Amino acid sequence: MPSPADAAPSYVWAAAIPEAGSSLTLDEQESRYLTKICRARAGERVTLTDGRGRRAQATLIQPGEAVVLEIVETQQVALERIATLLVGAPERGRADWMVEKLAELGVGFFQPIDTERSEWASSELRPDRWERLARAALRQSLRCHEMEVRELLPLPAAIDRALPQGPAKRYLADPGGTPAGRLSPQGTGHTVCVVGPAAGFSTGERGQLTSAGFIPISLSDARLRTETAALALAAWWSGAA
Amino acid sequence: MPSPADAAPSYVWAAAIPEAGSSLTLDEQESRYLTKICRARAGERVTLTDGRGRRAQATLIQPGEAVVLEIVETQQVALERIATLLVGAPERGRADWMVEKLAELGVGFFQPIDTERSEWASSELRPDRWERLARAALRQSLRCHEMEVRELLPLPAAIDRALPQGPAKRYLADPGGTPAGRLSPQGTGHTVCVVGPAAGFSTGERGQLTSAGFIPISLSDARLRTETAALALAAWWSGAA
Repeated sequence: MPSPADAAPSYVWAAAIPEAGSSLTLDEQESRYLTKICRARAGERVTLTDGRGRRAQATLIQPGEAVVLEIVETQQVALERIATLLVGAPERGRADWMVEKLAELGVGFFQPIDTERSEWASSELRPDRWERLARAALRQSLRCHEMEVRELLPLPAAIDRALPQGPAKRYLADPGGTPAGRLSPQGTGHTVCVVGPAAGFSTGERGQLTSAGFIPISLSDARLRTETAALALAAWWSGAA
Repeated sequence: MPSPADAAPSYVWAAAIPEAGSSLTLDEQESRYLTKICRARAGERVTLTDGRGRRAQATLIQPGEAVVLEIVETQQVALERIATLLVGAPERGRADWMVEKLAELGVGFFQPIDTERSEWASSELRPDRWERLARAALRQSLRCHEMEVRELLPLPAAIDRALPQGPAKRYLADPGGTPAGRLSPQGTGHTVCVVGPAAGFSTGERGQLTSAGFIPISLSDARLRTETAALALAAWWSGAA
Protein backbone atom coordinates (compact mmCIF):
# COMPACT_ATOMS: atom_id res chain seq x y z
CA MET A 1 0.00 0.00 0.00
CA PRO A 2 1.50 3.37 -0.95
CA SER A 3 2.38 5.60 1.97
CA PRO A 4 1.30 9.25 1.96
CA ALA A 5 4.91 10.18 1.15
CA ASP A 6 4.77 8.09 -2.03
CA ALA A 7 1.39 9.41 -3.02
CA ALA A 8 2.38 13.08 -2.78
CA PRO A 9 4.04 13.75 -6.14
CA SER A 10 1.33 12.52 -8.52
CA TYR A 11 2.86 11.50 -11.84
CA VAL A 12 0.71 10.28 -14.72
CA TRP A 13 0.82 9.46 -18.39
CA ALA A 14 -1.14 10.97 -21.28
CA ALA A 15 -1.02 9.98 -24.95
CA ALA A 16 -0.58 13.58 -26.03
CA ILE A 17 0.13 16.73 -24.03
CA PRO A 18 -1.30 20.02 -25.35
CA GLU A 19 0.20 23.49 -24.86
CA ALA A 20 0.08 25.44 -21.59
CA GLY A 21 -3.37 26.87 -20.93
CA SER A 22 -5.17 23.96 -22.59
CA SER A 23 -7.17 21.37 -20.72
CA LEU A 24 -6.76 17.60 -21.02
CA THR A 25 -8.89 14.61 -20.03
CA LEU A 26 -6.94 11.58 -18.80
CA ASP A 27 -7.83 8.05 -19.88
CA GLU A 28 -9.66 5.68 -17.57
CA GLN A 29 -6.58 3.93 -16.19
CA GLU A 30 -4.66 7.11 -15.38
CA SER A 31 -7.81 8.72 -13.95
CA ARG A 32 -8.31 5.75 -11.65
CA TYR A 33 -4.64 5.85 -10.60
CA LEU A 34 -4.80 9.54 -9.78
CA THR A 35 -8.15 9.44 -8.00
CA LYS A 36 -8.00 6.07 -6.20
CA ILE A 37 -4.27 5.49 -5.56
CA CYS A 38 -2.89 9.02 -5.28
CA ARG A 39 -6.20 10.39 -3.93
CA ALA A 40 -5.50 13.63 -5.74
CA ARG A 41 -8.08 16.42 -5.36
CA ALA A 42 -9.16 19.47 -7.32
CA GLY A 43 -6.55 22.23 -7.21
CA GLU A 44 -3.60 19.90 -6.70
CA ARG A 45 -0.50 20.00 -8.86
CA VAL A 46 0.10 16.97 -11.10
CA THR A 47 3.08 16.11 -13.29
CA LEU A 48 2.45 14.25 -16.53
CA THR A 49 4.46 12.81 -19.39
CA ASP A 50 3.69 11.35 -22.79
CA GLY A 51 6.51 8.81 -22.42
CA ARG A 52 8.22 10.35 -25.46
CA GLY A 53 10.14 13.05 -23.64
CA ARG A 54 7.39 15.62 -23.13
CA ARG A 55 6.67 16.53 -19.54
CA ALA A 56 4.15 18.98 -18.12
CA GLN A 57 2.99 20.54 -14.89
CA ALA A 58 -0.77 20.71 -14.60
CA THR A 59 -3.52 21.59 -12.14
CA LEU A 60 -6.22 19.07 -11.36
CA ILE A 61 -9.56 20.62 -12.33
CA GLN A 62 -11.89 17.68 -11.87
CA PRO A 63 -11.17 14.30 -10.21
CA GLY A 64 -13.17 11.12 -10.88
CA GLU A 65 -13.37 8.54 -13.64
CA ALA A 66 -12.32 11.04 -16.33
CA VAL A 67 -9.88 13.39 -14.65
CA VAL A 68 -9.60 16.86 -16.22
CA LEU A 69 -6.30 18.74 -15.93
CA GLU A 70 -5.25 22.21 -17.01
CA ILE A 71 -1.72 22.39 -18.39
CA VAL A 72 0.44 25.00 -16.64
CA GLU A 73 3.75 24.52 -18.42
CA THR A 74 5.46 21.99 -20.67
CA GLN A 75 9.03 21.03 -21.46
CA GLN A 76 10.76 18.58 -23.80
CA VAL A 77 13.42 16.40 -22.15
CA ALA A 78 16.14 15.12 -24.48
CA LEU A 79 17.28 11.51 -24.18
CA GLU A 80 21.06 11.63 -24.15
CA ARG A 81 21.71 7.97 -23.38
CA ILE A 82 19.71 5.12 -24.77
CA ALA A 83 20.00 1.36 -24.31
CA THR A 84 18.55 -1.45 -26.38
CA LEU A 85 18.45 -4.91 -24.78
CA LEU A 86 18.17 -8.05 -26.91
CA VAL A 87 17.15 -10.94 -24.67
CA GLY A 88 16.75 -14.67 -25.33
CA ALA A 89 13.97 -16.67 -23.72
CA PRO A 90 14.34 -16.96 -19.94
CA GLU A 91 12.85 -19.89 -18.03
CA ARG A 92 9.07 -19.95 -17.82
CA GLY A 93 7.31 -17.25 -15.79
CA ARG A 94 10.30 -14.97 -15.45
CA ALA A 95 9.79 -12.51 -18.29
CA ASP A 96 7.21 -10.18 -16.74
CA TRP A 97 9.25 -8.98 -13.82
CA MET A 98 12.31 -8.72 -16.03
CA VAL A 99 10.40 -6.36 -18.31
CA GLU A 100 9.24 -4.31 -15.32
CA LYS A 101 12.78 -3.98 -13.98
CA LEU A 102 14.33 -3.12 -17.35
CA ALA A 103 11.76 -0.35 -17.72
CA GLU A 104 12.46 0.96 -14.21
CA LEU A 105 16.17 1.06 -14.99
CA GLY A 106 15.48 3.20 -18.05
CA VAL A 107 16.12 0.77 -20.91
CA GLY A 108 14.84 2.33 -24.16
CA PHE A 109 14.02 -0.75 -26.21
CA PHE A 110 13.30 -4.30 -25.08
CA GLN A 111 13.79 -6.74 -27.96
CA PRO A 112 12.96 -10.42 -27.36
CA ILE A 113 15.07 -12.68 -29.60
CA ASP A 114 14.81 -16.25 -30.85
CA THR A 115 18.12 -18.06 -31.07
CA GLU A 116 19.39 -21.37 -32.40
CA ARG A 117 19.03 -23.17 -29.08
CA SER A 118 15.92 -21.54 -27.75
CA GLU A 119 12.72 -19.81 -28.88
CA TRP A 120 10.28 -17.79 -26.84
CA ALA A 121 7.11 -19.78 -26.08
CA SER A 122 4.10 -17.84 -27.37
CA SER A 123 2.50 -18.03 -23.90
CA GLU A 124 5.52 -16.19 -22.47
CA LEU A 125 5.27 -13.29 -24.93
CA ARG A 126 2.82 -10.85 -23.43
CA PRO A 127 3.26 -7.53 -25.23
CA ASP A 128 0.04 -6.01 -23.85
CA ARG A 129 0.96 -6.85 -20.29
CA TRP A 130 4.53 -5.70 -20.88
CA GLU A 131 3.30 -2.35 -22.13
CA ARG A 132 1.22 -1.93 -18.97
CA LEU A 133 4.27 -2.82 -16.87
CA ALA A 134 6.42 -0.36 -18.83
CA ARG A 135 3.79 2.34 -18.28
CA ALA A 136 3.64 1.63 -14.54
CA ALA A 137 7.45 1.69 -14.37
CA LEU A 138 7.43 5.05 -16.15
CA ARG A 139 5.23 6.48 -13.42
CA GLN A 140 7.15 4.74 -10.65
CA SER A 141 10.54 5.96 -11.81
CA LEU A 142 9.32 9.47 -12.72
CA ARG A 143 10.89 9.09 -16.15
CA CYS A 144 9.56 10.78 -19.26
CA HIS A 145 10.71 8.22 -21.82
CA GLU A 146 8.79 4.95 -21.85
CA MET A 147 10.48 1.67 -22.70
CA GLU A 148 9.33 0.38 -26.10
CA VAL A 149 8.60 -3.34 -26.32
CA ARG A 150 9.52 -4.66 -29.74
CA GLU A 151 8.15 -7.67 -31.56
CA LEU A 152 10.02 -10.96 -31.34
CA LEU A 153 12.78 -11.32 -33.96
CA PRO A 154 15.43 -13.91 -34.73
CA LEU A 155 18.85 -12.79 -33.44
CA PRO A 156 20.31 -11.68 -36.82
CA ALA A 157 17.27 -9.55 -37.68
CA ALA A 158 17.24 -8.09 -34.18
CA ILE A 159 20.87 -7.03 -34.54
CA ASP A 160 20.13 -5.45 -37.93
CA ARG A 161 17.22 -3.58 -36.42
CA ALA A 162 19.15 -2.37 -33.35
CA LEU A 163 22.34 -1.23 -35.03
CA PRO A 164 21.46 1.07 -37.95
CA GLN A 165 20.54 3.81 -35.48
CA GLY A 166 24.13 5.05 -35.70
CA PRO A 167 27.30 4.16 -33.86
CA ALA A 168 26.65 2.15 -30.73
CA LYS A 169 28.57 0.61 -27.88
CA ARG A 170 27.97 -3.14 -27.99
CA TYR A 171 28.08 -5.66 -25.15
CA LEU A 172 27.40 -9.36 -24.87
CA ALA A 173 26.66 -10.93 -21.47
CA ASP A 174 29.24 -13.71 -21.10
CA PRO A 175 30.60 -15.35 -17.93
CA GLY A 176 34.03 -15.49 -19.60
CA GLY A 177 34.07 -11.79 -20.52
CA THR A 178 35.71 -8.77 -18.93
CA PRO A 179 34.29 -8.05 -15.46
CA ALA A 180 31.65 -5.31 -15.63
CA GLY A 181 33.54 -3.33 -12.98
CA ARG A 182 36.41 -2.83 -15.43
CA LEU A 183 34.24 -1.60 -18.29
CA SER A 184 32.23 1.58 -18.37
CA PRO A 185 29.26 2.53 -20.53
CA GLN A 186 29.58 6.17 -19.45
CA GLY A 187 28.84 8.96 -21.85
CA THR A 188 25.98 9.71 -24.18
CA GLY A 189 24.72 7.77 -27.19
CA HIS A 190 23.35 4.33 -27.92
CA THR A 191 24.34 1.11 -26.14
CA VAL A 192 23.18 -2.28 -27.42
CA CYS A 193 23.34 -5.22 -25.00
CA VAL A 194 22.68 -8.86 -25.83
CA VAL A 195 21.76 -11.60 -23.35
CA GLY A 196 21.42 -15.24 -24.41
CA PRO A 197 18.62 -17.64 -23.51
CA ALA A 198 18.89 -20.12 -20.63
CA ALA A 199 20.61 -22.62 -22.93
CA GLY A 200 23.14 -20.01 -24.10
CA PHE A 201 24.18 -18.90 -27.56
CA SER A 202 25.59 -21.40 -30.06
CA THR A 203 29.27 -21.12 -30.94
CA GLY A 204 28.27 -19.69 -34.31
CA GLU A 205 26.04 -17.03 -32.80
CA ARG A 206 28.72 -16.04 -30.33
CA GLY A 207 31.20 -15.69 -33.21
CA GLN A 208 28.77 -13.52 -35.17
CA LEU A 209 28.27 -11.26 -32.18
CA THR A 210 31.95 -10.80 -31.39
CA SER A 211 32.68 -10.23 -35.10
CA ALA A 212 30.01 -7.52 -35.05
CA GLY A 213 31.93 -5.78 -32.26
CA PHE A 214 29.99 -7.00 -29.22
CA ILE A 215 32.33 -6.98 -26.21
CA PRO A 216 31.88 -9.96 -23.86
CA ILE A 217 31.11 -8.68 -20.35
CA SER A 218 30.99 -10.75 -17.18
CA LEU A 219 28.31 -9.66 -14.73
CA SER A 220 29.19 -11.91 -11.82
CA ASP A 221 31.70 -14.56 -10.78
CA ALA A 222 29.15 -17.34 -11.32
CA ARG A 223 26.42 -18.44 -13.70
CA LEU A 224 23.36 -16.17 -13.86
CA ARG A 225 19.88 -16.91 -15.11
CA THR A 226 18.92 -15.09 -18.32
CA GLU A 227 16.66 -12.59 -16.60
CA THR A 228 19.22 -11.93 -13.87
CA ALA A 229 21.93 -11.26 -16.45
CA ALA A 230 19.59 -8.92 -18.35
CA LEU A 231 18.85 -7.04 -15.19
CA ALA A 232 22.49 -6.87 -14.10
CA LEU A 233 23.50 -5.56 -17.53
CA ALA A 234 20.75 -2.92 -17.47
CA ALA A 235 21.76 -1.91 -13.92
CA TRP A 236 25.40 -1.62 -14.99
CA TRP A 237 24.38 0.63 -17.87
CA SER A 238 21.91 2.63 -15.77
CA GLY A 239 24.37 3.17 -12.91
CA ALA A 240 26.80 4.98 -15.21
CA ALA A 241 24.28 7.74 -15.90
CA MET B 1 11.77 -26.85 -18.76
CA PRO B 2 15.53 -27.43 -18.53
CA SER B 3 17.21 -28.27 -21.81
CA PRO B 4 19.64 -31.22 -22.02
CA ALA B 5 22.49 -28.69 -22.06
CA ASP B 6 21.39 -27.31 -18.68
CA ALA B 7 20.91 -30.74 -17.19
CA ALA B 8 24.41 -31.93 -18.04
CA PRO B 9 26.51 -30.55 -15.17
CA SER B 10 24.55 -31.87 -12.19
CA TYR B 11 25.21 -29.72 -9.14
CA VAL B 12 23.65 -30.50 -5.79
CA TRP B 13 23.78 -29.59 -2.13
CA ALA B 14 24.55 -31.74 0.90
CA ALA B 15 24.54 -30.70 4.55
CA ALA B 16 27.97 -32.26 5.10
CA ILE B 17 30.51 -33.65 2.65
CA PRO B 18 32.70 -36.52 3.85
CA GLU B 19 36.26 -37.30 2.70
CA ALA B 20 37.10 -38.83 -0.67
CA GLY B 21 36.30 -42.54 -0.82
CA SER B 22 33.27 -42.21 1.50
CA SER B 23 29.70 -42.57 0.36
CA LEU B 24 26.91 -40.10 0.99
CA THR B 25 23.11 -40.25 0.80
CA LEU B 26 21.42 -37.07 -0.45
CA ASP B 27 18.29 -35.73 1.19
CA GLU B 28 14.88 -36.11 -0.43
CA GLN B 29 14.83 -32.75 -2.19
CA GLU B 30 18.30 -33.04 -3.70
CA SER B 31 17.64 -36.68 -4.67
CA ARG B 32 14.47 -35.65 -6.47
CA TYR B 33 16.29 -32.79 -8.23
CA LEU B 34 19.07 -35.10 -9.41
CA THR B 35 16.81 -37.95 -10.48
CA LYS B 36 13.78 -36.11 -11.88
CA ILE B 37 15.17 -32.80 -13.16
CA CYS B 38 18.75 -33.67 -14.09
CA ARG B 39 17.82 -37.31 -14.92
CA ALA B 40 21.22 -38.37 -13.68
CA ARG B 41 22.04 -42.10 -13.86
CA ALA B 42 24.35 -44.50 -12.07
CA GLY B 43 27.98 -43.92 -13.03
CA GLU B 44 27.56 -40.24 -13.84
CA ARG B 45 29.75 -37.54 -12.35
CA VAL B 46 28.05 -35.13 -9.93
CA THR B 47 29.39 -31.97 -8.29
CA LEU B 48 28.20 -31.10 -4.82
CA THR B 49 28.67 -28.37 -2.25
CA ASP B 50 27.77 -27.83 1.38
CA GLY B 51 27.13 -24.10 0.72
CA ARG B 52 29.92 -23.25 3.16
CA GLY B 53 32.80 -23.40 0.71
CA ARG B 54 33.32 -27.15 0.48
CA ARG B 55 32.95 -28.63 -2.98
CA ALA B 56 33.32 -32.24 -4.13
CA GLN B 57 33.30 -34.37 -7.22
CA ALA B 58 31.37 -37.60 -6.77
CA THR B 59 30.09 -40.59 -8.72
CA LEU B 60 26.42 -41.46 -8.67
CA ILE B 61 26.10 -44.98 -7.25
CA GLN B 62 22.34 -45.26 -6.89
CA PRO B 63 19.63 -42.94 -8.26
CA GLY B 64 16.08 -42.73 -6.87
CA GLU B 65 14.44 -41.17 -3.84
CA ALA B 66 17.59 -41.43 -1.72
CA VAL B 67 20.48 -40.93 -4.09
CA VAL B 68 23.79 -42.49 -3.03
CA LEU B 69 27.04 -40.87 -4.17
CA GLU B 70 30.67 -41.85 -3.71
CA ILE B 71 32.99 -38.91 -3.10
CA VAL B 72 35.94 -38.79 -5.52
CA GLU B 73 37.68 -35.63 -4.39
CA THR B 74 37.00 -32.57 -2.25
CA GLN B 75 38.27 -29.03 -2.08
CA GLN B 76 37.70 -25.99 0.12
CA VAL B 77 37.00 -22.74 -1.75
CA ALA B 78 37.88 -19.55 0.11
CA LEU B 79 35.47 -16.62 0.01
CA GLU B 80 37.57 -13.58 -0.79
CA ARG B 81 34.78 -11.07 -1.28
CA ILE B 82 31.63 -10.95 0.77
CA ALA B 83 28.63 -8.65 0.68
CA THR B 84 25.97 -8.03 3.30
CA LEU B 85 22.76 -6.35 2.14
CA LEU B 86 20.46 -4.58 4.61
CA VAL B 87 17.09 -4.03 2.96
CA GLY B 88 13.97 -2.19 4.10
CA ALA B 89 10.49 -3.51 3.28
CA PRO B 90 9.68 -3.44 -0.44
CA GLU B 91 6.10 -3.23 -1.68
CA ARG B 92 3.98 -6.32 -1.11
CA GLY B 93 4.84 -9.50 -3.01
CA ARG B 94 8.25 -8.36 -4.19
CA ALA B 95 10.56 -9.86 -1.60
CA ASP B 96 10.79 -13.44 -2.86
CA TRP B 97 12.27 -12.76 -6.23
CA MET B 98 14.57 -10.15 -4.73
CA VAL B 99 15.94 -12.81 -2.38
CA GLU B 100 16.40 -15.24 -5.28
CA LYS B 101 18.29 -12.66 -7.34
CA LEU B 102 20.51 -11.52 -4.46
CA ALA B 103 21.48 -15.16 -3.88
CA GLU B 104 22.22 -15.68 -7.58
CA LEU B 105 24.44 -12.61 -7.58
CA GLY B 106 26.45 -14.05 -4.68
CA VAL B 107 25.37 -11.87 -1.77
CA GLY B 108 26.62 -13.44 1.49
CA PHE B 109 24.07 -12.16 3.98
CA PHE B 110 20.55 -10.87 3.41
CA GLN B 111 19.40 -8.79 6.36
CA PRO B 112 15.83 -7.46 6.36
CA ILE B 113 15.55 -4.22 8.37
CA ASP B 114 12.74 -2.30 10.01
CA THR B 115 13.07 1.46 9.75
CA GLU B 116 11.32 4.51 11.15
CA ARG B 117 8.97 4.87 8.19
CA SER B 118 8.37 1.25 7.36
CA GLU B 119 8.29 -2.20 8.91
CA TRP B 120 8.22 -5.58 7.19
CA ALA B 121 4.75 -7.13 7.31
CA SER B 122 5.00 -10.54 8.95
CA SER B 123 3.28 -12.13 5.92
CA GLU B 124 6.12 -10.85 3.72
CA LEU B 125 8.86 -12.41 5.86
CA ARG B 126 9.23 -15.95 4.61
CA PRO B 127 12.55 -17.26 5.91
CA ASP B 128 11.79 -20.92 5.05
CA ARG B 129 10.88 -20.08 1.50
CA TRP B 130 13.86 -17.72 1.23
CA GLU B 131 16.20 -20.50 2.32
CA ARG B 132 14.80 -22.77 -0.39
CA LEU B 133 15.27 -19.98 -2.94
CA ALA B 134 18.84 -19.40 -1.74
CA ARG B 135 19.53 -23.14 -2.03
CA ALA B 136 18.11 -23.25 -5.58
CA ALA B 137 20.17 -20.18 -6.51
CA LEU B 138 23.28 -21.90 -5.13
CA ARG B 139 22.71 -24.81 -7.52
CA GLN B 140 21.75 -22.54 -10.41
CA SER B 141 24.82 -20.33 -10.09
CA LEU B 142 27.22 -23.21 -9.34
CA ARG B 143 28.43 -21.33 -6.27
CA CYS B 144 29.72 -23.04 -3.15
CA HIS B 145 28.76 -20.40 -0.61
CA GLU B 146 25.07 -20.12 0.16
CA MET B 147 23.45 -16.80 1.01
CA GLU B 148 22.47 -16.65 4.67
CA VAL B 149 19.08 -15.15 5.46
CA ARG B 150 19.18 -13.26 8.74
CA GLU B 151 16.34 -12.50 11.11
CA LEU B 152 14.61 -9.14 10.88
CA LEU B 153 16.32 -6.41 12.91
CA PRO B 154 15.76 -2.68 13.41
CA LEU B 155 18.27 -0.64 11.35
CA PRO B 156 20.65 0.29 14.21
CA ALA B 157 20.93 -3.32 15.44
CA ALA B 158 21.40 -4.55 11.87
CA ILE B 159 24.30 -2.13 11.38
CA ASP B 160 25.87 -3.27 14.65
CA ARG B 161 25.53 -6.85 13.56
CA ALA B 162 26.93 -6.28 10.06
CA LEU B 163 29.92 -4.14 10.94
CA PRO B 164 31.93 -5.86 13.70
CA GLN B 165 33.18 -8.42 11.19
CA GLY B 166 36.17 -6.15 10.52
CA PRO B 167 36.76 -3.23 8.20
CA ALA B 168 34.13 -2.96 5.51
CA LYS B 169 33.32 -0.82 2.53
CA ARG B 170 29.96 0.82 3.15
CA TYR B 171 27.39 2.02 0.64
CA LEU B 172 23.93 3.51 0.90
CA ALA B 173 21.54 3.42 -2.10
CA ASP B 174 20.59 7.06 -2.66
CA PRO B 175 19.32 8.77 -5.85
CA GLY B 176 21.39 11.83 -4.87
CA GLY B 177 24.63 9.87 -4.41
CA THR B 178 27.67 9.36 -6.63
CA PRO B 179 26.78 7.41 -9.79
CA ALA B 180 27.66 3.73 -9.39
CA GLY B 181 29.75 3.88 -12.57
CA ARG B 182 32.19 6.22 -10.81
CA LEU B 183 32.61 4.06 -7.72
CA SER B 184 34.16 0.62 -7.57
CA PRO B 185 33.77 -2.12 -4.99
CA GLN B 186 36.71 -4.02 -6.50
CA GLY B 187 39.08 -5.95 -4.31
CA THR B 188 38.65 -8.48 -1.54
CA GLY B 189 36.99 -8.08 1.83
CA HIS B 190 33.60 -7.18 3.20
CA THR B 191 31.13 -4.75 1.62
CA VAL B 192 27.99 -3.66 3.47
CA CYS B 193 25.18 -2.14 1.41
CA VAL B 194 22.00 -0.54 2.74
CA VAL B 195 18.75 -0.03 0.82
CA GLY B 196 15.82 1.86 2.30
CA PRO B 197 12.15 0.83 2.26
CA ALA B 198 9.67 2.13 -0.33
CA ALA B 199 9.01 5.19 1.84
CA GLY B 200 12.74 5.93 2.17
CA PHE B 201 14.91 6.52 5.22
CA SER B 202 14.14 9.35 7.63
CA THR B 203 16.52 12.31 7.71
CA GLY B 204 17.83 11.04 11.06
CA GLU B 205 18.52 7.55 9.73
CA ARG B 206 20.27 8.94 6.68
CA GLY B 207 22.44 11.07 8.93
CA GLN B 208 23.33 8.06 11.10
CA LEU B 209 24.31 6.08 8.04
CA THR B 210 26.51 8.74 6.49
CA SER B 211 28.10 9.41 9.91
CA ALA B 212 28.90 5.69 10.09
CA GLY B 213 30.77 5.99 6.79
CA PHE B 214 28.13 4.78 4.36
CA ILE B 215 28.79 6.36 0.97
CA PRO B 216 25.62 7.43 -0.93
CA ILE B 217 25.56 5.69 -4.30
CA SER B 218 23.15 6.42 -7.14
CA LEU B 219 22.13 3.35 -9.13
CA SER B 220 20.14 5.02 -11.89
CA ASP B 221 19.10 8.45 -13.12
CA ALA B 222 15.57 7.97 -11.80
CA ARG B 223 13.68 6.63 -8.82
CA LEU B 224 13.93 2.84 -8.27
CA ARG B 225 11.71 0.55 -6.26
CA THR B 226 13.35 -0.92 -3.15
CA GLU B 227 13.83 -4.37 -4.65
CA THR B 228 15.21 -2.93 -7.89
CA ALA B 229 17.71 -0.80 -5.98
CA ALA B 230 18.77 -3.84 -3.91
CA LEU B 231 19.30 -5.85 -7.05
CA ALA B 232 21.15 -3.08 -8.86
CA LEU B 233 23.45 -2.62 -5.86
CA ALA B 234 24.15 -6.36 -5.65
CA ALA B 235 24.78 -6.48 -9.42
CA TRP B 236 27.19 -3.55 -9.14
CA TRP B 237 29.10 -5.33 -6.37
CA SER B 238 28.98 -8.70 -8.14
CA GLY B 239 30.16 -7.30 -11.47
CA ALA B 240 33.39 -6.07 -9.94
CA ALA B 241 34.46 -9.62 -9.06
